Formats: sequence, structure tokens, C-alpha cells
Amino acid sequence: MRTLARDLFQKCRDYRDSADAKAQGFYPYFRQIDETHGNYVMCDGERKIMIGSNNYLGLAQDERVIEAACEATRAYGAGCTGSRLLNGTIRLHSQLEEALADFLQREAVLLFSTGFFANQGALASLTEDGDVILCDRENHASIIDGCQFAPAKLVPYRHNSASSLGNRLKRQAPEAGKLVVMDGVFSMSGDIADLPPQLEVAKSYGARVYVDEAHSLGVLGPKGRGVVHHFGLNDDVDIVMGTFSKSLGSMGGFIAGDRQMIEFLKHRARCLIFTASLAPAVAGGVLKALEIMQQEPERMEQLWRNTHKMHEGFKRIGFKIGTTQTPIVPILIGSEAKAFMFTQRLFEEGVFATPAIYPAVRYGEAIVRTSYMATHTDDDLDHVLEIFEKLARELGTFDDPAYVEPGRRRNVFDFRLDASENGSEGAAEGQNGYHQATK
Amino acid sequence: MRTLARDLFQKCRDYRDSADAKAQGFYPYFRQIDETHGNYVMCDGERKIMIGSNNYLGLAQDERVIEAACEATRAYGAGCTGSRLLNGTIRLHSQLEEALADFLQREAVLLFSTGFFANQGALASLTEDGDVILCDRENHASIIDGCQFAPAKLVPYRHNSASSLGNRLKRQAPEAGKLVVMDGVFSMSGDIADLPPQLEVAKSYGARVYVDEAHSLGVLGPKGRGVVHHFGLNDDVDIVMGTFSKSLGSMGGFIAGDRQMIEFLKHRARCLIFTASLAPAVAGGVLKALEIMQQEPERMEQLWRNTHKMHEGFKRIGFKIGTTQTPIVPILIGSEAKAFMFTQRLFEEGVFATPAIYPAVRYGEAIVRTSYMATHTDDDLDHVLEIFEKLARELGTFDDPAYVEPGRRRNVFDFRLDASENGSEGAAEGQNGYHQATK
Repeated sequence: MRTLARDLFQKCRDYRDSADAKAQGFYPYFRQIDETHGNYVMCDGERKIMIGSNNYLGLAQDERVIEAACEATRAYGAGCTGSRLLNGTIRLHSQLEEALADFLQREAVLLFSTGFFANQGALASLTEDGDVILCDRENHASIIDGCQFAPAKLVPYRHNSASSLGNRLKRQAPEAGKLVVMDGVFSMSGDIADLPPQLEVAKSYGARVYVDEAHSLGVLGPKGRGVVHHFGLNDDVDIVMGTFSKSLGSMGGFIAGDRQMIEFLKHRARCLIFTASLAPAVAGGVLKALEIMQQEPERMEQLWRNTHKMHEGFKRIGFKIGTTQTPIVPILIGSEAKAFMFTQRLFEEGVFATPAIYPAVRYGEAIVRTSYMATHTDDDLDHVLEIFEKLARELGTFDDPAYVEPGRRRNVFDFRLDASENGSEGAAEGQNGYHQATK
Repeated sequence: MRTLARDLFQKCRDYRDSADAKAQGFYPYFRQIDETHGNYVMCDGERKIMIGSNNYLGLAQDERVIEAACEATRAYGAGCTGSRLLNGTIRLHSQLEEALADFLQREAVLLFSTGFFANQGALASLTEDGDVILCDRENHASIIDGCQFAPAKLVPYRHNSASSLGNRLKRQAPEAGKLVVMDGVFSMSGDIADLPPQLEVAKSYGARVYVDEAHSLGVLGPKGRGVVHHFGLNDDVDIVMGTFSKSLGSMGGFIAGDRQMIEFLKHRARCLIFTASLAPAVAGGVLKALEIMQQEPERMEQLWRNTHKMHEGFKRIGFKIGTTQTPIVPILIGSEAKAFMFTQRLFEEGVFATPAIYPAVRYGEAIVRTSYMATHTDDDLDHVLEIFEKLARELGTFDDPAYVEPGRRRNVFDFRLDASENGSEGAAEGQNGYHQATK
């Protein structure tokens, strides 16, 4: 039989973006780390200082965390080979859930095998047809995808805007179940959720409130308890989500909240029930990292000293770093091509940072994303600033992003370094500039 | 403001199923494993033989795998704290991808942080609006959920039926892109995909074919290469998915296929791009397990000896085990309450098995799912059979499942052990019986 069916693989054969980027020498993704040594990594025989991780407290490389991961592996094996529901619950999982509940002052916690799953599982299970999820426009992809999976309607609101949230809430059916979801710290801009006014608006409409503490745990709040504790609003936020792949130095995630909600999720979240549980190494390592985080508050203090040093250092050189208030420091570049080029030059100079382009940020507002660790020394950071200063002289500080029509969507790889994008000329409109993007 | 909004947490407060099950002493989920010793685990101070894992080759507890996981952790840390795309690619990830590609005789492989994600990411990225995914009705939940995420239309077909597949394909628009997806070994029934005729039908309609080797890797095919190699059809199947949480003893998953398809997925699968990569311990452990699997074919041979012994043993006692052809041996029970009771009695007698109820199996066809490992000794298995024989005398073999109207859907926890379900009376219709379910 001759078939007319469209071939699913045609789009794969047509896909050239990554090959083009590689051919031009600017491909910034899937860079292989051959060795890891504290704040440094080895790539292709060259040493690079790591300012592209989410390892805020440096605990991923802590000897005690590593030893705890090994001990857990020796005790329970390399994996649990089954889901938490069935044969995959080891004592370390329960201990970690209890330790997190205690730390966050919540009744109960439920682990998921990835942070993405924690959002996906909770958002899909807790909402029903007719419900509404109100979502900050700059929330992480896993929240957006979780909403897509949920039977509820997704209603985005303007980033960090209580008034936009209020306007959206006003338009929903009064009887609809409502959930307001926001990141505690936004992963690209580094700004902190403006929680108090949004919480007030949410509560006035009877909405439940859900905060994703992925980038705030270990960074904000007493002992690193996150943005909810930072604002002293732990009694008012209904659901807290967090991950283990940032300050806690491993992989996985969790949902924290009241006991009944967690019990419900345990029996309803399909990505929990139908996924193998976290490996013993992960549970053991995270448990130790959580303990160290609480015992050594000086780590978070050093993280903040490093953060302020870098905020000031970049501004002094002339870079725009948007509205960041945290160790995530975006360097505004503008076009994707330039963000890739800048990332590549950094890499050649021994600095491992990563670009973020559309859809991770708005189109035309590409950044080089940098982030700092408690373990970075003053020498490390001075060296990083020196390199940036050198590249600013070489390439400019890109403080006038090329204007891009709002909503104009191009391919995520774009290497047309045409004249209009060459950084030196002004882009007077500025109406899609970085400050707006992160406000 | 007084609000009328429906409270999202009301359903959590109304949820009583697990509490009821616990109150009745039959709750079979989230059982905590305190210690793991080879084929045995310790729960609450008591030793249980594990026949409820997916650790088919016993490699999760292999000393060499454990040491490789520890070595990887010492070399790279407890986690990578970032996605593969950005800062989370270590040499071990690349090595594992190359080793798997080599093993499976495929051009390229892409790791995902869970097996669920491998299905979700591939199915959502490879299809577009207007495409159709044809799905065996008994495919794993992660395939079903992946299809839900995909822009393509989901069309289920009768389990393992090439003619049903053909009928469904015939009704689709000729120009629609088509993907046929099936498990290689079905996780509940243990039967093997009837690949050759389905492949022929699929190809005649220009469909691409996707096989999930989660439960067939390490179990079927030369050196455990899976069901596709078992049938000698590696050149005809377009996409192979596999997991690390079964024979390879850890967690995570992968997609294997041609280089262009993998390159496309690397830049399109959101659950890859926006998730922290597999921890070094996982990558290191799996790499070693894959090596051992190839070097020690006697493991798979022993697995099959154990499998045949148990198939015969259960049949001899009088249990119905459906159409299983693999180390997954479902014991047909019928009602959920009885499956829970049977599981509980097994547990009391020192046997760790798990129940599977709706929606993992059809309603009214609850099973106790057992599965065997290469490392189980004859003594282990004889002991298991003795316990089952004892329970058969005590509780019956449940070979006449209570008839349940097709499509009748009740709560997944159901403890009404009413007279009509008491196992001793016949259920003459049998038209929703186990053999049909697994055919």
C-alpha cells in the first residue's frame, strides 16, 4: 500500500538550528563537564569557573553530602526499582519527608522524583473542571506544563502584579475553585515574588495559594526556609513546592502542606504513582544537605555577601542586571545571537555561564544567566568580574537591547548578526526592554 | 469580602479511602523498607522476601553497581543542579548514551530524568496537531499521560491486536501523521507485545512505530536487548524507549533512535530542558549495570529458569496467572478488597508483593503482582510457593472473579466484602475475566 501519511520524522530532518549554531561555533548547550572540582569544572582539558549552576550553597560538592549519598547507596542499593506506592519507599524517603516538614513547619511533605513532577502532580491532581489556576507569567515551565495537564483553566497574570492578579480573579466565576501559583524567586530574572499583596488579593477571592520555592530554599528566609518564611506568611500560603536540585545539591522535588492534602496527592498524582522513587543516593544526600544547611547559617550569609558583590560589580562595569534581588544575576544582552556569542567568549575565557533565550525569557531579551554560590571566594568572583570587564570592552555591554515587536516569535536559534543588532546603535523605543520584562 | 469559591481542598478533606483501608488493616501502599539485603527487605523488624520489585537481574544490589554509583558521586558530587541543556551534562551522561546506543544498535540515545519523562517528552515533541497516536489499551500510564500532553489525537486499540490496530488506522485521515505505541512487555499482565503483525499493519499505513522496553530490557532478546531485538525487528522499529528503574537497577529513562530524531528531541522536549539531569550516582550505577548485564548472560538465563519455575508452581497450586510469558507473574484475585487482603496475608507471612487494582488493571480484575529476579534462589522460590499454597487453602485461589459490569467504575478502594464477592461462588459470565483482560 502506498501511503500519503505525513512522516513524523520530517520535522526532525528539517531541524537545522543546532547544527547551524555548531557550524558557527556558538552552540552553548549540552556542554560536557569532564571533571568537577568544587567551584571549577574541567571541559575539554580546560578549567572553567562555574557560575552557571543552581548549587547555591555549594552542597552538591560537600564531602559530607557525598559520603551520605554513598552510605545510602551501600545500605539500600543503587535504586528502589519501583514507585513509592508499591515497592519503592525506603526509610530514607520517610525521614526526608519528616525532616522537610519539620524544617518548613508544615504538617506533611511528599517527595517526587523530579521537581517538575511535583508541580505537574500537584497542579493536575488538586484542580478539577471548572477551576481556575492563576499563574504569574514568568513562572517556571514545569508550572506552565503542570497547568496544561490540569483540568483547570490556566489564566496568566502580569509578573509580580497584585493588581493584574486582582483583575483576573474578578473576571472568574465566583463559584470556581481558584489557585494562585507563583515562583518564590524567578529563575531567570532573579527577582523575589511580591507575595504579601498577591496573597491578600488571592485570599479576598477565596483562592488557595501555591508557592514554588525552587530557587528560594536555602537562599531566603530564616535558615533558608524560603520566601514564604522570609515574608513571615507560612500560615497563609497553602501549598509549598520545592526542589532538591538547587541548594540541596541533588535532584527531585516535593510538595509540603497539610496532612489531608498530602494524603490525597499520594493516591492521586499519576507522576508519583507511576514513577520509580528517588534513588537512595539522592534521598541520603539531600537529608544530609538539609541538616548542614540548618547547622551552618554562615553559608547563606556568605552567599549573600557574594551576591551583593556581584550585583555591584556588574553595575559598576555597566551591565544591566534587571531587577534581580538574589544570587541569580542575569546579564542583559538582547539578541539571541549575541547572548550565544557572549556565552561562548566567556567559556573561552574560562567562565561557565549559560544563555537564556526565548521562551525562557521574552523574545529579544536574551540574557547570559549567572548565579553564585556560597563557596565562591573573593578571588573567584574578582576573576569573573575581570573577564566580564574585558568582554565589555570587546563586545560592549549591550545596554540597549534591539527593539523587537512584542509577540514576534522567531526561531530560538538566530544567528543573523545583521547591522541593526550590532549593539552599538541605540534602540530608542526600549518598550520591550529588560526592565519591563522583569517588572 | 465573603467568597463563594469552591475550596480546592474540600476534596482532600472528603478523601477517606486510604484512612478506611488503614483502619481495616488492609492498606497495601507506601510500605516502608527499613533495610535491604539482596532478595530480602526488613520492614518493622521483620524479614520479607521481595517479589514485588522490577529489579529483574538483581543489579540494584550488586556490589559493583553500588561502588560505581559511589565513585561517580565522589567524582562529580551528589547532583548536577541543572538541566542537561545548560550546566547538567557530565561525561558519565554522554558515556551512558553512547553505551546504550551501542548496546541497542541505534544511532543515538537521549537520557531523561525519569522513564515517565522519556515517554512524555518524546510523545509530546514528536507529534503535531492533526497527528494520531495509536496506543495499545494496556500501555503504561506514562504513555497515556504523554499522549494527553501531545497535540496529536489519542486512539486506543485492543490489547495486542493487529486487527484492531488496522481497523483504527483505516479510519484516520490518510494524510495524518501516525505513531503506533506499545509496551514491549506489559507491566501488569506480563505478556509480550505481539510486535510482528502490528508492525506490518503500522507500516502499511505509513505509521512510525514506538516500543517501550521498560520491562523487556534485560529480560528479552540477545543479551537483554529487549523485545525489538527478540523479534529481530530492530531495523523496523523507529523509536525505542527504556528505563533504568528495572533491570538496570536505578532510576531514569531514555529514548533511542536515529540521530536526527534525537537531536530534535534534545531541543524540544520540555521535560528534558526544564529538569535537572540524572544524579552522577545514577549515571555511574547504570553504566556499570549495563556492562555487567552484557558480561554475565547467565543472569538472564537464571531469570528465565526462575520465571518458568514460578509459572509452573502457581499453576500447579491452582492460581490463574493469565497470559504472562515473563518474570511478571500476576495472580488473579478479582475484587480489590480481596487483592488487598491477600497482599496483607502475604506480607504477614513474610512475602513482599503488591496489589494492582483499577485503573492499573481493568475494574474487577485486581491482581497480586509478583515478579522474579535472577538472584532468587530455589529455596527462596520454593518458600514463596509454599506460602501461596498455604494462603490458597486459607483464602481460595480466586479463580472465579466476580463479574463486574464492563465500564462500571467504582472507587479504587473498596472494602465492601459482601456475599457476592466471597470467592466461593461462581461468576458464570466470566466475560470480563482475566484471560480476556490480558489477551
